[in-house]
Amino acid sequence: MARQIGSELKGVIAAAPTPVTANLEPDIPRFLTLCRWLLDNGCDALNVCGTTGEATSFTLKQRMAIMSAAAGALPLQRLMTGTGAASVGDAVALTGHAAALGFAGALLLPPFYYKGVSDDGVLGYFERIVAATEDEPIDLFLYNFPQLSGVPYTPHLVERLSAAFGERIAGLKDSSGDLHYAAEIAAISPRLSVFPSTEAVLLQARAGEFTGCISGSANVTSTYCARAFNDGDAAALDRACAIRALVSRSPLIPSVKAVLAARLGDPELERVLPPLSPLAESDKRQLLRDVVATEAA
Amino acid sequence: MARQIGSELKGVIAAAPTPVTANLEPDIPRFLTLCRWLLDNGCDALNVCGTTGEATSFTLKQRMAIMSAAAGALPLQRLMTGTGAASVGDAVALTGHAAALGFAGALLLPPFYYKGVSDDGVLGYFERIVAATEDEPIDLFLYNFPQLSGVPYTPHLVERLSAAFGERIAGLKDSSGDLHYAAEIAAISPRLSVFPSTEAVLLQARAGEFTGCISGSANVTSTYCARAFNDGDAAALDRACAIRALVSRSPLIPSVKAVLAARLGDPELERVLPPLSPLAESDKRQLLRDVVATEAA
Repeated sequence: MARQIGSELKGVIAAAPTPVTANLEPDIPRFLTLCRWLLDNGCDALNVCGTTGEATSFTLKQRMAIMSAAAGALPLQRLMTGTGAASVGDAVALTGHAAALGFAGALLLPPFYYKGVSDDGVLGYFERIVAATEDEPIDLFLYNFPQLSGVPYTPHLVERLSAAFGERIAGLKDSSGDLHYAAEIAAISPRLSVFPSTEAVLLQARAGEFTGCISGSANVTSTYCARAFNDGDAAALDRACAIRALVSRSPLIPSVKAVLAARLGDPELERVLPPLSPLAESDKRQLLRDVVATEAA
Repeated sequence: MARQIGSELKGVIAAAPTPVTANLEPDIPRFLTLCRWLLDNGCDALNVCGTTGEATSFTLKQRMAIMSAAAGALPLQRLMTGTGAASVGDAVALTGHAAALGFAGALLLPPFYYKGVSDDGVLGYFERIVAATEDEPIDLFLYNFPQLSGVPYTPHLVERLSAAFGERIAGLKDSSGDLHYAAEIAAISPRLSVFPSTEAVLLQARAGEFTGCISGSANVTSTYCARAFNDGDAAALDRACAIRALVSRSPLIPSVKAVLAARLGDPELERVLPPLSPLAESDKRQLLRDVVATEAA
């Protein structure tokens, strides 16, 4: 089902968070340490600069710096990066940078400020991105997250994008939570790699129904996810889903950062950028206790 | 009701569109011509780089270039500029640029990618913006447009922002269309200038209930708006509202651009940036016929 023979964008993919300094700059050394740790602990691949990575809260320059740092230090065949933006010029620049650096794929939000836009408008955004990366193509993955972007990649729009740009449209990550939709997209073409955002699909992915999952909670469930995807271990998957439920109880991104901070023994990892805010201390302590109890059960 | 004696951000304020070149760059000469024409045709002031100006579809660099060009050529005491962004760093840079150039106000969308964020998260965004412009303060206006931003400035949040940042929070533009909400914000403090987004409130504004309107359709209704606000001409206001209804029938921004292109005899003004798309030719012709008929009635 995976699009390219040898593609490493499959299986368990964590949407990595971006550590930030007290000045709200990306904390590059911590980011690289965290990415290496994730790749060594069950993740087949990573998506950096996505929603969990707070990419849209960083400037273009900061996003490019994060991507450049990843390219200089991590195995790029295992890395996808978010390059979507409200501004078509930013999306073109970010996708071009990802292509030039050699990332295995670019994950594209639609332009997300205006709502109720026409399919032609989204096509126009992709036309510019595809044209700008024609000489140095990179696989483009559609990032469907209508709850945040307000602009869905409807099956009809995915068909139009695939027809217009052929192999450049390599797949779709679906964060809508609607598995019926994800299956409908996978049915459009065997060329499309489809990644729901929940590790709950990993046994179906193992059976070939999806290419894998790209998940924010996989940052803290990846070792269980790996046992599910590689060995078909249903009990491990249950444990991953139980931990996912815990980090979804409060806002996901500060929760994931809090658990990672505890696991890596580095409280600096907890910091988030506005408009996100850290967990209340009592919520954080409860979360950490509950995660430990779930792992020990 | 206006916040500062002598403030010119009051009355009829058009949210000016940004003309774009075939390469999707801001068309600065046409932008300046258009702004001058609006200021000469009934607009007390302008908001540039707002939603109608497609600001979030431009890059940071392009937005700064538009602002710099406006500052070099237009009366800044009559100009407010949008400086909000999904990225806190971009919002800081844009607001700092507006302050340094001497704009009369900065209109701030909340960070608009994440949804369901806490008030503390939005406070954190403003803390950075206020701190960065402490030495060269600029009046900050909140831009409430939950249908596009997904993040409302609730009355409670406006109270918290006013309490935290005092006079720096100068007012609010409300594009929600809920006049009850707008009145509730105006009641928080006489220090807050409130601008609904519809010219329909201009007689109420004349009576002191609001400071004025900031409207996308005022680009094509400003002469009628001026008669309503300055002279209390109710028939002129009816005509403005009738034209507003016509340009709201199809997507507002391409409709406003199409009417302005016809009025200024410059088809180049019609062009929009992705993800917006131009009106279908038949819709455009019908719109132009209907506007002419409404003006002649």
